[in-house]
Amino acid sequence: MSQMDTALRIGVAGLGTVGASLVRLMGRHGNDIAVKSGRPISITGVSARDRNKDRGIDLSGYAWSDDAVALAADSGNDVFVELIGGADGVAHASVRAAIAAGKHVVTANKALLATHGVSLAREAEAAGVSLNFEAAAAGGIPIVKTLREALVGNTINRVYGILNGTSNYILTRMEQDNLPFAECLTAAQRLGYAEADPSYDIGGQDTAHKLALLTAIAFGTEIDAQSIYVEGISSITPADIEAADELGYRIKLLGVASRTESGIEQRAHPTMVPKSSAIARVDGVTNAVAVEGDFVGQIVLLGAGAGGDATASAVMSDIADIARGDRMGTFGRPASSLEPYRRAGMRLHEGGYYIRLSVYDRPGAFAAIARRMADADISLESIVQRRRAPRTTAPEHPVPEAPQPVIMITYETTEAAIRGALELVKEDGHIASDPQMIRIEPLA
Amino acid sequence: MSQMDTALRIGVAGLGTVGASLVRLMGRHGNDIAVKSGRPISITGVSARDRNKDRGIDLSGYAWSDDAVALAADSGNDVFVELIGGADGVAHASVRAAIAAGKHVVTANKALLATHGVSLAREAEAAGVSLNFEAAAAGGIPIVKTLREALVGNTINRVYGILNGTSNYILTRMEQDNLPFAECLTAAQRLGYAEADPSYDIGGQDTAHKLALLTAIAFGTEIDAQSIYVEGISSITPADIEAADELGYRIKLLGVASRTESGIEQRAHPTMVPKSSAIARVDGVTNAVAVEGDFVGQIVLLGAGAGGDATASAVMSDIADIARGDRMGTFGRPASSLEPYRRAGMRLHEGGYYIRLSVYDRPGAFAAIARRMADADISLESIVQRRRAPRTTAPEHPVPEAPQPVIMITYETTEAAIRGALELVKEDGHIASDPQMIRIEPLA
Repeated sequence: MSQMDTALRIGVAGLGTVGASLVRLMGRHGNDIAVKSGRPISITGVSARDRNKDRGIDLSGYAWSDDAVALAADSGNDVFVELIGGADGVAHASVRAAIAAGKHVVTANKALLATHGVSLAREAEAAGVSLNFEAAAAGGIPIVKTLREALVGNTINRVYGILNGTSNYILTRMEQDNLPFAECLTAAQRLGYAEADPSYDIGGQDTAHKLALLTAIAFGTEIDAQSIYVEGISSITPADIEAADELGYRIKLLGVASRTESGIEQRAHPTMVPKSSAIARVDGVTNAVAVEGDFVGQIVLLGAGAGGDATASAVMSDIADIARGDRMGTFGRPASSLEPYRRAGMRLHEGGYYIRLSVYDRPGAFAAIARRMADADISLESIVQRRRAPRTTAPEHPVPEAPQPVIMITYETTEAAIRGALELVKEDGHIASDPQMIRIEPLA
Repeated sequence: MSQMDTALRIGVAGLGTVGASLVRLMGRHGNDIAVKSGRPISITGVSARDRNKDRGIDLSGYAWSDDAVALAADSGNDVFVELIGGADGVAHASVRAAIAAGKHVVTANKALLATHGVSLAREAEAAGVSLNFEAAAAGGIPIVKTLREALVGNTINRVYGILNGTSNYILTRMEQDNLPFAECLTAAQRLGYAEADPSYDIGGQDTAHKLALLTAIAFGTEIDAQSIYVEGISSITPADIEAADELGYRIKLLGVASRTESGIEQRAHPTMVPKSSAIARVDGVTNAVAVEGDFVGQIVLLGAGAGGDATASAVMSDIADIARGDRMGTFGRPASSLEPYRRAGMRLHEGGYYIRLSVYDRPGAFAAIARRMADADISLESIVQRRRAPRTTAPEHPVPEAPQPVIMITYETTEAAIRGALELVKEDGHIASDPQMIRIEPLA
């Protein structure tokens, strides 16, 4: 009880947008949070690279440190908040130093946890401290708390979501304004929604890192971020988006983790989702996470997945849990009870597929393609041959060979079957460019 | 630490659908929950009215009690789970008995808390025990945990949602199948979505009780469920739903609590919500709650608001929090720090309104109505006069007086202004029946 009488002292390393928002949040709501938590909470020390940068906040009341590792180990703090970023380097070193010095750690660093999360969780557990990361998974959306605590009484069968606002913004603009990918990426960069080097976001890696953390909690497994199947959105064309619309789908970059007979399947890729699903209607930079549990059914959480203020709100939630004395294993259970990650290989993935081919308009081409699909036991739910110029010449005349788009939706099949069939279609030489293939996710 | 070595012993009073689901949940996931919580959790005693009723669960391993109050005070339990229901009577008595005996309490009883929540929270606080109620606010949706814990660093400006699955099912059916209210209610009853006496659900009272709980947490105020403005859905007609659709809205029974200059506004009534909003797209028995915080922005949670399994999932979350030793004030802060509820009277409500009038088709009728609106400083955003038979007679001939529907959407005005104007319109005698008036809620 005596701990409740003294202030919880926070050291904050990293004063970018999230760090600056956290300082503002504590300034505005610190007193109220103390009432709610039963204990004062105060930032005592801060650390960043450049002391003199104007961040729009007054730092004069906090001890400054140029060295995040030193701040982490400083005996003046009870909690170390890591907002530096990066899987290794100072972020990793300072978090380890904090744990070694017996401090609780709060981090918003998905790359760090996707890479070192299990070993850090073990170290935190051995040291008897918390390692919390609400802000690392989906910004302001409380999905870590929901999975770790609220759904504790459920076996989770699938967790999936739109975890990257940059990609969702681009896909939304492509659809709404009928624009190509590159143009929407430029617009996103102009608006500050995409980095100068956007590859981490649009390539699916950011989604994969966040998914890795959700998977560990949802399924109680160790993290294996390397084994996640990752595909970005840069291959998506307006033709795909238009076809999806006509077929009753929208295209979203989803992270999906699901329990299958052969293990846990983890993948981050563009996905066709039914228009009627809750996730299909999430536009712009908004994120969404859905969880399917055996008792709760489906829960969907929507909100801001990034941005300084929303992320600071999540960091504050983690700090308040520590202030109240709530201790929970980093991934929702003791680190020693996490099971080894049993990977369901991507070739075993089962589902429907959208295929777009650019087929030379010559006799027998389509029959050959259909034969390849049939040979692989792939049934077609629908076939659309679009924008084909009407045939005005008699059949015996030679027809122009200009490639025509052919779109197929398959019934459920396996990734191995579809890849094999498309490889043979390519070899047959009837298509003018590589096939486009987008997985369909059945969602409620 | 010693507490963590011993099992947390649970007494469950009430074995309806939720209680039976909780017993099943503990049977299926008890071992896993123990690992996650760091402590065994076991149901030791149960109580219900009829010992011999077949509930599809094996109760032979639990001590039976015919008396919930006795079970509540039984020294063999650490936590009392109240699933009896009702604002008073056995539910109230047993919860008080449990608190007096130093037991933690978990309840799914919204009526109890909307009526006695603050006094029970004070008693629990004085006794040093938890009083948790995740299942009471929105079934399986973790909105209590989100408001109490995840959004601790936010000032909440508005919380609103679809909190009653019965009403949402009826409104969805009315829209999808173009059926009148009564017919959809009968369908809901047939499917078990509505009670034989449906008034608590369709009259808005259930929504109001849930809203009262969310308001207390969101704004840190005492509960005043009596002061909530409540209006049910039985006056909604297919004509309203059709007009809403044409105007870009859908009609939902919403509970809304918001911070205004004159105090906290709380209301439960049919609401026109923009089709583009997340809440507009919530169909059937699904519930949804949205929260607007100054740092997090808008968060929306969707899921099952009722049903035995989803509700049991929420009850389990509350139990696990107690098992972990997480203690938090019932409404997110010490009961003594809850501020008196300062009510913003409904007449001060500001917003747009949808008005549907049945106007006698006579010269000057519409001009008189428009004059009444103008006199009250109400500006009209749109006016739709529908299904009016074309006028085939010359103007000097008498025209048929058959009433014609007139639909108006107002710009923002006050409830007092609109009620005053409609009262005068009624007195003028140009309308054939009472005006229909539905509030418009601006939502993202």
